[in-house]
Amino acid sequence: MIERLCIVGVGLMGGSLAIALRRAGYCREIVGTGRNRANLEQAVALGVIDRFETEPAAAVAGADMVLLAVPLGSVASVVAALRSGLSDTAILTDVGSAKGSVVADITQALGYLPPRFVPGHPIAGNERSGVSAAFGELYQGHRVILTPLAETEPAALQAVTTMWQTAGAEVETMAVAHHDEILAATSHLPHMLAFALVDSLARLGEADEIFRYAAGGFRDFTRIASSDPHMWRDICIANREALGAMFEHFRNDMLCLEEAVARADGETLSEMFSRAKQARDRFYQTEPSS
Amino acid sequence: MIERLCIVGVGLMGGSLAIALRRAGYCREIVGTGRNRANLEQAVALGVIDRFETEPAAAVAGADMVLLAVPLGSVASVVAALRSGLSDTAILTDVGSAKGSVVADITQALGYLPPRFVPGHPIAGNERSGVSAAFGELYQGHRVILTPLAETEPAALQAVTTMWQTAGAEVETMAVAHHDEILAATSHLPHMLAFALVDSLARLGEADEIFRYAAGGFRDFTRIASSDPHMWRDICIANREALGAMFEHFRNDMLCLEEAVARADGETLSEMFSRAKQARDRFYQTEPSS
Repeated sequence: MIERLCIVGVGLMGGSLAIALRRAGYCREIVGTGRNRANLEQAVALGVIDRFETEPAAAVAGADMVLLAVPLGSVASVVAALRSGLSDTAILTDVGSAKGSVVADITQALGYLPPRFVPGHPIAGNERSGVSAAFGELYQGHRVILTPLAETEPAALQAVTTMWQTAGAEVETMAVAHHDEILAATSHLPHMLAFALVDSLARLGEADEIFRYAAGGFRDFTRIASSDPHMWRDICIANREALGAMFEHFRNDMLCLEEAVARADGETLSEMFSRAKQARDRFYQTEPSS
Repeated sequence: MIERLCIVGVGLMGGSLAIALRRAGYCREIVGTGRNRANLEQAVALGVIDRFETEPAAAVAGADMVLLAVPLGSVASVVAALRSGLSDTAILTDVGSAKGSVVADITQALGYLPPRFVPGHPIAGNERSGVSAAFGELYQGHRVILTPLAETEPAALQAVTTMWQTAGAEVETMAVAHHDEILAATSHLPHMLAFALVDSLARLGEADEIFRYAAGGFRDFTRIASSDPHMWRDICIANREALGAMFEHFRNDMLCLEEAVARADGETLSEMFSRAKQARDRFYQTEPSS
């Protein structure tokens, strides 16, 4: 049970956790804060939070659990702004898609790495944002990766684990660097490909015609290019080391493919496409596309 | 009204057209042929075709409309095999995803370009194959691109147009080379990215873990990597010229993105992601992902 939960950034991620925990009767009070007052007012009107404070330090005062759900590029400044209100006993966690940068930014903003900080990343979300997009089932059955550090208090890790489980998530732990590599591969690189493909086609000069003839698969393939551009700018920069390694790995593979196509090397193409199909079908059931 | 329709290759594409036309009462008889006898027997059992012939020349004999729905790599040999049975008055059309190669292969196989050949490409399909995957609604509301040549008889173009409209499709025409460029951009390149990404990740050594942590967006993004590997080998080779140009175009854009990430150039990243999001949202409504 959380006495006072403070959600810093009441958008899709923070708002959905608030809704899920409230439904479970797991928080006595939920306080929100953020830069956008209209969004906070809407969050109160929707019953997602009980009240809000526009000053981060006032919002976290008296909270026993603080969830940072702000863009990665804002973590340092937000933590510096809430520092004076943060209790020594408060547990701090976050939802950032890269963990190394969050650990570094919080350490820098506070001057030390708090033992009650538990870095976290729920593997959930969609292309929408703001509290109006929040819904209580967002985390149901999804994984939340926590990346505790040597300094992290076991009781804090346990509290954050229980919180996410209460919201319906499956909690796992791994090392910060490993998390950042796995996410670069499975989320950050695919988003880069989707953004780059859509942008590349949009600048071809026949964009209207090109999108008009795009088949069903293209729509699914490019859906993640509708994600928030500024959030993704922050993720790229925050995880640029691991993402850079994936860019290079994939660039080499694409070049092999391009060369196989150029020399009409059917054997190499069949092998590569078959390996890919087998790998995907092994993990997902094949479902018809729309 | 078609007296006798011959479907050469009774799979997802050919079978679905047969089902749609039969439902519309548009064919007096539908004859199938193909390499896989069990598939043809299943097609008869499912009521998709009336009967089948294992010899292509026997199958097309007496047909007033012949639909080629075989892999692009088989067009030349299949047309050579059916040549002796093809009536001078028969209309020939196809469903290949690249049109330049089909025109070249048919011209080579027959020794001339028949004026009753209408190259066609329905922009529909999914990752499944075989007659068991066929369904009558596949073409409903989808575009079919026909790429008539200077030699094509207007009456043949009209007959193929009416056939596809009867199956529920919207028919448009464009030049062969233009079709191949548009499809390289909207279909062939995206499939290459999906195959290459899944293959690339599968060979990272932590494939099990990587796929386990892949979020919802990844599943949609990689769905097209479950497509038939041999069909895609053929498409790549058939359209390698236009696809090569798209590879190069995209490779340059990806390199710009990679460099922007490496130098933490937030402005360039925001611009690119915003352009992509705007372009996509303009053409599709933003829908929440699963």
